[in-house]
Amino acid sequence: MLITLTTDFGYQDAFVGIMKGMILGINPQACIVDLTHGIAPQNILAGALALRHAIDYFPADTIHVTVVDPGVGSARRPLLIEAGNGYFIGPDNGIFSLTLANKPALRIIELSNPRYHRQPTSATFHGRDIFAPVAAHLSLGIPPENFGPRLDSIADLSLPKTIRGECELTGEIVYIDGFGNLFTNIGRHDLTGVPVDRLVVRCGTFSIVGLAESYASASVGEFIALINSWGVLEVAVRNGSAQRVAGLDVRDRVVLTWDR
Amino acid sequence: MLITLTTDFGYQDAFVGIMKGMILGINPQACIVDLTHGIAPQNILAGALALRHAIDYFPADTIHVTVVDPGVGSARRPLLIEAGNGYFIGPDNGIFSLTLANKPALRIIELSNPRYHRQPTSATFHGRDIFAPVAAHLSLGIPPENFGPRLDSIADLSLPKTIRGECELTGEIVYIDGFGNLFTNIGRHDLTGVPVDRLVVRCGTFSIVGLAESYASASVGEFIALINSWGVLEVAVRNGSAQRVAGLDVRDRVVLTWDR
Amino acid sequence: MLITLTTDFGYQDAFVGIMKGMILGINPQACIVDLTHGIAPQNILAGALALRHAIDYFPADTIHVTVVDPGVGSARRPLLIEAGNGYFIGPDNGIFSLTLANKPALRIIELSNPRYHRQPTSATFHGRDIFAPVAAHLSLGIPPENFGPRLDSIADLSLPKTIRGECELTGEIVYIDGFGNLFTNIGRHDLTGVPVDRLVVRCGTFSIVGLAESYASASVGEFIALINSWGVLEVAVRNGSAQRVAGLDVRDRVVLTWDR
Repeated sequence: MLITLTTDFGYQDAFVGIMKGMILGINPQACIVDLTHGIAPQNILAGALALRHAIDYFPADTIHVTVVDPGVGSARRPLLIEAGNGYFIGPDNGIFSLTLANKPALRIIELSNPRYHRQPTSATFHGRDIFAPVAAHLSLGIPPENFGPRLDSIADLSLPKTIRGECELTGEIVYIDGFGNLFTNIGRHDLTGVPVDRLVVRCGTFSIVGLAESYASASVGEFIALINSWGVLEVAVRNGSAQRVAGLDVRDRVVLTWDR
Repeated sequence: MLITLTTDFGYQDAFVGIMKGMILGINPQACIVDLTHGIAPQNILAGALALRHAIDYFPADTIHVTVVDPGVGSARRPLLIEAGNGYFIGPDNGIFSLTLANKPALRIIELSNPRYHRQPTSATFHGRDIFAPVAAHLSLGIPPENFGPRLDSIADLSLPKTIRGECELTGEIVYIDGFGNLFTNIGRHDLTGVPVDRLVVRCGTFSIVGLAESYASASVGEFIALINSWGVLEVAVRNGSAQRVAGLDVRDRVVLTWDR
Repeated sequence: MLITLTTDFGYQDAFVGIMKGMILGINPQACIVDLTHGIAPQNILAGALALRHAIDYFPADTIHVTVVDPGVGSARRPLLIEAGNGYFIGPDNGIFSLTLANKPALRIIELSNPRYHRQPTSATFHGRDIFAPVAAHLSLGIPPENFGPRLDSIADLSLPKTIRGECELTGEIVYIDGFGNLFTNIGRHDLTGVPVDRLVVRCGTFSIVGLAESYASASVGEFIALINSWGVLEVAVRNGSAQRVAGLDVRDRVVLTWDR
């Protein structure tokens, strides 16, 4: 059974390796895949987005362990969620809410049974002491209800909403990838009925006309807007970093206009 | 069967994890090894060099998936190459040409059969939609010819040539590793007949006399030239970064001179 | 059998991938886990600390390959150490001494038998040519004594000592993690009998009163001291980087005082 790991632990330290040691010590047959450990420190929204846009490419019984957890040691609850598209393990801080928005949870469990936690359990590293061992036990076939009592709901985290006018749609940058491409909260479905060839995309001081099919349709250094591999509107610079060239960041606005 | 992944996707995002999900969803037994995802964005030459100097350390039936792909979505063809030292999957942009320079391709296939592609197939992420699923199917034993028609040739990418004088050899820096070591296009064989103990290596404003056996033969902070683990002439600083100290970059010249 | 890898090779190059190719070519069943490859270049102490604080979370027969090796190619010996908590393979430069401080070696072997080395053996990349193939052969059941003769001792590397006064304890920063948290050489046991709620922790121009249970007990941006997941005293900034805010680095002092 597949277990994925997504954290903000970075690549400098052995924290992720330690989680893998915990998992493989319990289930030596576990197949572990790193989604990414490059989520910016404490950036729950970035973790939530990375997870949401990755799970569709994994088998539906995959266990996704997601640890962006600034509240570790506080009252925030440790969770196991069973949904139609996977199992989700991590803190109850909103990191799973985008993933579950389309595919509601079948069962939510609070991970309160200490039998499946490392003892002693630290107040600073639940990735090692709770989430990794629970994932390993779950992958061995321990039923979800063994890990603790059921809950009714989880913490929410919303994407900022887009604002739709008659010939205008205002969104914002919600994620910037390692290439410096600017991902917005404007999805493919938001453009239903919009004449994409006559669309003008404005961000910062730049404006782009029309949507491209791929990066390669622009000249090197040119700005481009396209529907990217997440299915959202992205502003990019061919063979460059739109983030750097445009000097934009998450939360900056992106405005689409068109003629009727 | 072993599948390696080499990309310029970096470590911030889940793109590499997504490729692994695609592979393991098709072949749960696949053994996936990351060669590196730290190739500089769109740097096809760096990817080609990293691959060329890694494959000799893998079994000859390994499947090497290499995605440095600024032309994704354009007319550049997606390839599967069978050679005596491995299978190579990725874009036809020259990234395989250095690897195949010594070991010619036995078979080149254009990956045009949509049956083995994810549907729908995006124009921006062929790593996920074409290269990963093809690698997974190949690892399951699907014969290469099933993936598409044969091609006669692939795109070429040449290393800059060295220039040999009577008592002089001029090369250049072609790759800089994470330690800041400067890798040149001068190979061990280029030094046949050259008196290496009397050699003077000049780069930028620095000159080094003779070739060292190892980093440890220099004092800390000292410049050194040696034949490195790729079998090429490298300029390094003991326990430091030659790139930073010398202020040099890829394409800068390295000149070797010697007395007869 | 589990094999972990810890290096200062970083994530830009294929060096780690090459080591994995060597291992899997010899033992295709090997399960390889990256502890981290983000150890700062040539920083033996950081590698030693990362290893020491990770091995307790792995099965006791795990093979830990640790390559922070500025002396590669010099007289420093390549080692295999068998201890009660694992097998350790790497250079004899002190990198294993912290790990073995509590758990003495059962057997120390000098890796001098060329039969288990890649031929030819380079003087610059023993990770590929000696340590990876030895680990792979060991994981196949080759007995330790086959790899070379026994040694009596290994190179030593000490943590700086803390200085204890009547109502004062002076330590120093020995490691800084990717979040910018400052790890000291002050362990949980050093605080025996110290009234932790009345403790004052001073580092740089900052002082902190008392020990926190977790990061979440502070306000965002606030300094905090706690016993971290390594079991050592750490200075952190809630949702921030203590390293950046305090402008401190490894070797800077941390002073604890308290009233009787």
